[in-house]
Amino acid sequence: MNCEIIAVGDEVLFGDILNTNAQYIAAGLSDAGAVVQWQTVAGDSPALIRQALATALTRCDTVITTGGLGPTYDDITKEAAAEWLGVPLRRNEAIAQQLRDYFASTGREMTENNLKQADIPEGAMPLPNPNGTAPGILLQKDGKLLIQLPGPPREMRPMFQNHVLPVIAAQTEKKRASRTLKIFGFPEAAVESRLRERMLSTQNPTIAPYVKNGEVEVRLRAQAPTAEAAYALTEPYAQEIHQLFGLNNYSLNGETLAQVLVNTLAAKGLRAATAESCTGGMVSAAITAVPGSSRVFDGGVCSYSNEAKTRLLGVRPETLKQCGAVSEPCAGEMADGIRRLMQADLGISVTGIAGPTGGTEQKPVGTVCFGLSTPTGTITLTRQYRASGDDVRENSRTRATMEALFLLLKAAVEWKEAPHV
Amino acid sequence: MNCEIIAVGDEVLFGDILNTNAQYIAAGLSDAGAVVQWQTVAGDSPALIRQALATALTRCDTVITTGGLGPTYDDITKEAAAEWLGVPLRRNEAIAQQLRDYFASTGREMTENNLKQADIPEGAMPLPNPNGTAPGILLQKDGKLLIQLPGPPREMRPMFQNHVLPVIAAQTEKKRASRTLKIFGFPEAAVESRLRERMLSTQNPTIAPYVKNGEVEVRLRAQAPTAEAAYALTEPYAQEIHQLFGLNNYSLNGETLAQVLVNTLAAKGLRAATAESCTGGMVSAAITAVPGSSRVFDGGVCSYSNEAKTRLLGVRPETLKQCGAVSEPCAGEMADGIRRLMQADLGISVTGIAGPTGGTEQKPVGTVCFGLSTPTGTITLTRQYRASGDDVRENSRTRATMEALFLLLKAAVEWKEAPHV
Repeated sequence: MNCEIIAVGDEVLFGDILNTNAQYIAAGLSDAGAVVQWQTVAGDSPALIRQALATALTRCDTVITTGGLGPTYDDITKEAAAEWLGVPLRRNEAIAQQLRDYFASTGREMTENNLKQADIPEGAMPLPNPNGTAPGILLQKDGKLLIQLPGPPREMRPMFQNHVLPVIAAQTEKKRASRTLKIFGFPEAAVESRLRERMLSTQNPTIAPYVKNGEVEVRLRAQAPTAEAAYALTEPYAQEIHQLFGLNNYSLNGETLAQVLVNTLAAKGLRAATAESCTGGMVSAAITAVPGSSRVFDGGVCSYSNEAKTRLLGVRPETLKQCGAVSEPCAGEMADGIRRLMQADLGISVTGIAGPTGGTEQKPVGTVCFGLSTPTGTITLTRQYRASGDDVRENSRTRATMEALFLLLKAAVEWKEAPHV
Repeated sequence: MNCEIIAVGDEVLFGDILNTNAQYIAAGLSDAGAVVQWQTVAGDSPALIRQALATALTRCDTVITTGGLGPTYDDITKEAAAEWLGVPLRRNEAIAQQLRDYFASTGREMTENNLKQADIPEGAMPLPNPNGTAPGILLQKDGKLLIQLPGPPREMRPMFQNHVLPVIAAQTEKKRASRTLKIFGFPEAAVESRLRERMLSTQNPTIAPYVKNGEVEVRLRAQAPTAEAAYALTEPYAQEIHQLFGLNNYSLNGETLAQVLVNTLAAKGLRAATAESCTGGMVSAAITAVPGSSRVFDGGVCSYSNEAKTRLLGVRPETLKQCGAVSEPCAGEMADGIRRLMQADLGISVTGIAGPTGGTEQKPVGTVCFGLSTPTGTITLTRQYRASGDDVRENSRTRATMEALFLLLKAAVEWKEAPHV
């Protein structure tokens, strides 16, 4: 099954918004065992939409459009589909009633324009839209399958999951499994060079590394008659990669670093606390993004100014005076201070120069110090992130957040029963 | 000038990664006054790339490819371009030397495969790549322009800015200006209904609202002989929209809510402090994402557990017992507590049930309480965000973060000289 995905809309075409819909549909189709052959973006004009549909239906057997179904577009996408079928649009009374109910339930006024959304090509199967007004449609002709979905992701995604994927999966012989291994602390080139031989030696699964937010994701993807068998094909490679990278390969199935950290802390009955300067709360925000993180996290402090470091965390004024706020001694005292204050098992601290300004020759932009306080001692370390670029501040903050989470994870994994302090 | 953008790569086609390159190039071309007519994604196969190029060069006069230039792809994209020109690939000695220098400077070994990147179609103009190994190329034939850029954004973006946009801008008669107005606190439907008449009455500028992360962005875009004249065309509409929405239209040129807040606090000489429960540090992270935020922000507390609320912020145990942690009385005491602790002018607090579990009949998932403490008094309020959906936790946390920033902004704007407490 060869598929083309057509995203309709000037807002995507002109670069106003990211084409997240095409990625979502492509990933879903691929996992269902279909082959995505093309992706196209067409503007909001009848001629362009007609041309895109004609081209796609020539070169692929399955075509999925997204967008161009709202009342403001005058339904040009649906009309193009009706033309292809050679049939008129007909009002579907069931959809019309759903529209009336939808507007009644949201208390909004329904216009005649809205009711036009109940007009679908004769013979098309409507796909219900519980999250909006535009129904999807599914058409078949001459062995070709044409599916039209609305553009808003909240409406498109459930419709794709519930009404499109089952149809696709029923027509594909092979199923696919894909899984993501996440590796922190190795540059992409180092991951690639360690994996190169394996990447070249196997086509099923395929092995592909991608750089994402300061870490490397390795995507394994296999095909087999069932999804379970496909997943089983990935397993030996996943285990082999895990052997190669150890704890740095913290996730074998796409979990975030914070998720793995929260699970590990919970399994060991540990509680962590955070003291943040340059990351300003990003570490605690990442931990609390995980549902159930209250089992392992009471809270933390964002001590942005020197005074806050002294007042809230007990950092000594002499340390700040002699070493500065961005120093390992300060990071160590911050970590000790937050562990004490929150009566936690592990205290982590981050203090650095995020940029874009504020760097010195000794401590350039991108210098970040970390402290990790445990009942058996305190360690500190310094990282130097990229010091320039448009996104220097975001880059150093994101990487420092990952590093802090990883330091906590490492400490939790290596935790030996120790007296609680 | 009609343009097609072709992103080459299975990783985009199959949905492994978002096609951010196409959006970046499309937005740049549009602002330079070119018309983006099509976007296409082609897989890593010579036949598909040839087919995509042939189709694009038939229907557009300018074609820009991104990706498919690395050594691992065997340079099939470049070979397809040479075929179109009807010329062979020739080694370019200047590029070969740059490659040798690049590998020497990074301490990596250069293989014969890498050196193949110095082979470009005869007569093509190479575009230097200071951030990687694959040069871009620019070709012209029969009035058509074909530009090939590497895929990694760090390499593609500067090459596009420095070597492609000037060429495009020189060939377009009209320039475009686009600006983004941001509106917080109005649902999209309400923004649309207030703007509908204006949206329909003007084509230059165009006016288009988009929903983004709990707020609405209104994009104004105008064309004129110069970028300055185009911008001037947007001005009366921007002012009119600002009149309509008042402070809720907090940004007239795309600044984030946190940026506007930091600037407003700084202009008034005010300092703010944060006390966060369900947002877990997202408010302080947003504020400290703004360079120079130390002028207005000393720090804050993430008081995730009840004990932390009591110990760090002085929330009374009776309040927690009688009203619960997610209550306006608790939010008020948190806000007062953090303002006192940090000796700030404004204290903001957030406490809520982010979900996906933990809701009750009285306080369902998505219930969030806010407190704002000022020298003249403390106000509290409660919001009810969406209680279901895959992203319910992220949604309520993001919206609560925006609400907290907006409450601070409103307080700063309305601030009258008052005795410092």
